[in-house]
Amino acid sequence: MTPTDALPKVLDRIDADLDNSLARLFDFLKIQSISTDPAYADQCKSAAAFVARDLETLGLKAEMRPTSGHPVVIGKPEKPNGGPRVLFYGHYDVQPVDPLDLWQTPPFDPRIEDLGNGRKIIVARGACDDKGQLMTFLEACRAYKAVTGTLPLDITVMIEGEEECGSKGLFSFVKENADEFKLDMALVCDTAMWSPTTPMVTTSLRGLVYEDVTVTAADRDLHSGLFGGAAQNPIRVLTKALAAIHDDDGRITIPGFYDGVPELPDDIKADLKALNLTAEEFLGQIGLSIPAGEKGRLLIEMISTRPTCDINGIIGGYTGEGAKTVIASQAKAKVSFRLVGDQDPVKVQQAFRDFIRARIPADCKVEFENHGLAPALQLPFDSPAIVKTRKALQDEWGHKAVTVGAGGSIPIVGDFKRVLGMDSLMVGFALDDDRVHSPNEKYDLTSFHKGTRSWARILAALAG
Amino acid sequence: MTPTDALPKVLDRIDADLDNSLARLFDFLKIQSISTDPAYADQCKSAAAFVARDLETLGLKAEMRPTSGHPVVIGKPEKPNGGPRVLFYGHYDVQPVDPLDLWQTPPFDPRIEDLGNGRKIIVARGACDDKGQLMTFLEACRAYKAVTGTLPLDITVMIEGEEECGSKGLFSFVKENADEFKLDMALVCDTAMWSPTTPMVTTSLRGLVYEDVTVTAADRDLHSGLFGGAAQNPIRVLTKALAAIHDDDGRITIPGFYDGVPELPDDIKADLKALNLTAEEFLGQIGLSIPAGEKGRLLIEMISTRPTCDINGIIGGYTGEGAKTVIASQAKAKVSFRLVGDQDPVKVQQAFRDFIRARIPADCKVEFENHGLAPALQLPFDSPAIVKTRKALQDEWGHKAVTVGAGGSIPIVGDFKRVLGMDSLMVGFALDDDRVHSPNEKYDLTSFHKGTRSWARILAALAG
Repeated sequence: MTPTDALPKVLDRIDADLDNSLARLFDFLKIQSISTDPAYADQCKSAAAFVARDLETLGLKAEMRPTSGHPVVIGKPEKPNGGPRVLFYGHYDVQPVDPLDLWQTPPFDPRIEDLGNGRKIIVARGACDDKGQLMTFLEACRAYKAVTGTLPLDITVMIEGEEECGSKGLFSFVKENADEFKLDMALVCDTAMWSPTTPMVTTSLRGLVYEDVTVTAADRDLHSGLFGGAAQNPIRVLTKALAAIHDDDGRITIPGFYDGVPELPDDIKADLKALNLTAEEFLGQIGLSIPAGEKGRLLIEMISTRPTCDINGIIGGYTGEGAKTVIASQAKAKVSFRLVGDQDPVKVQQAFRDFIRARIPADCKVEFENHGLAPALQLPFDSPAIVKTRKALQDEWGHKAVTVGAGGSIPIVGDFKRVLGMDSLMVGFALDDDRVHSPNEKYDLTSFHKGTRSWARILAALAG
Repeated sequence: MTPTDALPKVLDRIDADLDNSLARLFDFLKIQSISTDPAYADQCKSAAAFVARDLETLGLKAEMRPTSGHPVVIGKPEKPNGGPRVLFYGHYDVQPVDPLDLWQTPPFDPRIEDLGNGRKIIVARGACDDKGQLMTFLEACRAYKAVTGTLPLDITVMIEGEEECGSKGLFSFVKENADEFKLDMALVCDTAMWSPTTPMVTTSLRGLVYEDVTVTAADRDLHSGLFGGAAQNPIRVLTKALAAIHDDDGRITIPGFYDGVPELPDDIKADLKALNLTAEEFLGQIGLSIPAGEKGRLLIEMISTRPTCDINGIIGGYTGEGAKTVIASQAKAKVSFRLVGDQDPVKVQQAFRDFIRARIPADCKVEFENHGLAPALQLPFDSPAIVKTRKALQDEWGHKAVTVGAGGSIPIVGDFKRVLGMDSLMVGFALDDDRVHSPNEKYDLTSFHKGTRSWARILAALAG
């Protein structure tokens, strides 16, 4: 029975098995696999072990492979079944949960919430990014296994544990084991829908440069009454340097930053414009109304095809209750850049460091630490795989699937292209209001259920 | 026996009783009376009770009087003894101890450290500011009581518990009980020496405006991949606004900020210049070398007679280990101003808030909270009390006592003048390297011992 013939039974099986699918997802969501914080290393290992056990149940040969950081879980077919060979990628790690007090229920105690008029959501850290999303793929595979006794095509699975902190370990792992993973195509489920009803295939990704900056002045904290006016204040120095990064039009002033940033072809720009993304619908959901990016750009450009810089965190001095008249000895900030087109991450990093250094007075010292360097990625809009996938998505959702660039970064996808010579097919079912990386992260039950059904259809299409 | 006749015996008594004096100070230093943090309210009460008990042993009628905040301890003579009536002011509260990990020993576990060549220091939070300093006065009184059976003049003691968080409660207390405390003069021991060998009478104090600023953008934390470039980043907005406060010459750009700032008369400026305070000696001790204040000003002006602005703290977004690609919903800063001359604290506060508001984009909101509003204070250089005091200090230290303006603020001293019509005599024995408000705060044993002897001499001089 070909995957296409089996598809109707497979879809029925997915519907019938939904409660068990959710039970498996909940067990996964209970594991506190926060990769960026060393305190959670054991939990990351538990999450990896959970995935490995699950891959075995799909008939794959699974192992936890060591990296410089958290292990990567690999699942391989016992024997090739002749179909196209795909590499499915996902990650079992999640973001930190702070600020914890903003969670309505504990982040690792998953629950279903009924929002009324038929809409239900799964609430937990990782419900969407990426545990919920990657399980849509594994549940689709499980349904094929149950109905046909085998997987619909030659599937290798790679689930890493460092996506939320830069995928450092995975880069070298892929490089060192390139021959093992050079397959026909990668499948990635870590992206979003265009809207709750319109599916999307992601055809470009922004790159990332993430830097810690630490400015140090005096060798101790000082009394601002005694030393104020005479001693350098590292918070003042740091804020002044950071404030110079953007001009009043929202453009980044770092010399050379825009090198390699392409202007969109008119037709693509017209397509984007046609999507008619309004500030009201995109920013309204988070309590904002005015696009804050570069003057003269479409909102959709700001979030998908233009490079950006954000200060992700800053701290210095006294931050407790009440007043303390102190001049801090040190101030720190975390600064990240989203890259597009041919921007060179290393050049951007260097230009940023030079830009800050040039603004540090003689009496202060500045130190940098890198937490990520990834170039942007552009994929073809019209490969056969994308055409088949858009058709399969339309069959499931009843709306034409759009192809758009994503604002986020999936660092490893760039290496799949550069190191393994493989294009990636990026399909996901996240929604803009999923509160990914925020308190009360959620995943629509519809995203999980129809996402699973979507993968069943896509796998059949790719196999056929 | 007049206080002057008794003085030699009193000084001997102080020397003989030094170990007991230190034991009493250590008991006081063990109390964690951090006034700005509500978690330490009980410890503040214990510190007040400690002071009240000690005042009773000096023959004063002591009570803990309630305020809107922590209690103020009042000690009054059982019966007037005819001498001039002075009000001694000090505070039993201390600054927070963070960053705790920089303390070599626990902050509330006082110890004596021998630095060699005869120099010993008392190390603990409050060792100098203000527990050690106020005890120099009480120990001098104790010696008179022991030698003469009474205090050398009519002394009322007022020890408050909110100096480190703005003295709010004390302001209204003094206003409401003005008649009770309208005496001839206030004595204040919360200031510094000019150098370890040169005593100083402080004749002016900078005022203070202390504000919390909170900028809020989206109603939740956001993923910088999804929203970066489109959503306002409150850290970026706040840093940009704060960075605009100072120009490249270190001048404050807030409109009207310098209204009421006097230029020094040439002779006073010449005196200051003659003190020849070098960056090497003043900043060298804290690992710095270049004065960071207004271009074209003497270092001593920067720290005593010019107004300043410092960012005392800032926090927003992710500040933990590693990377988190988040756009925070909120960013906060603590900003304080040191005022001089006739600068109006309320006008400065208003101008600052307007300045920040003007830099907040439509999509963000800003909130302010005040933690202190005190005008600057200028006292006469040549009152009889100051002349007598400088002589007494010279007798003890062997060097001429200088009169200089202090960079810090003692908010209540302004009210003593305005509300009670009383000048204050500000004498203290702190040194620039006492790490006041910082980890490992210390007070030289010499400051404590000779400070006590100094007060004995000053009291005799004022009584005579």
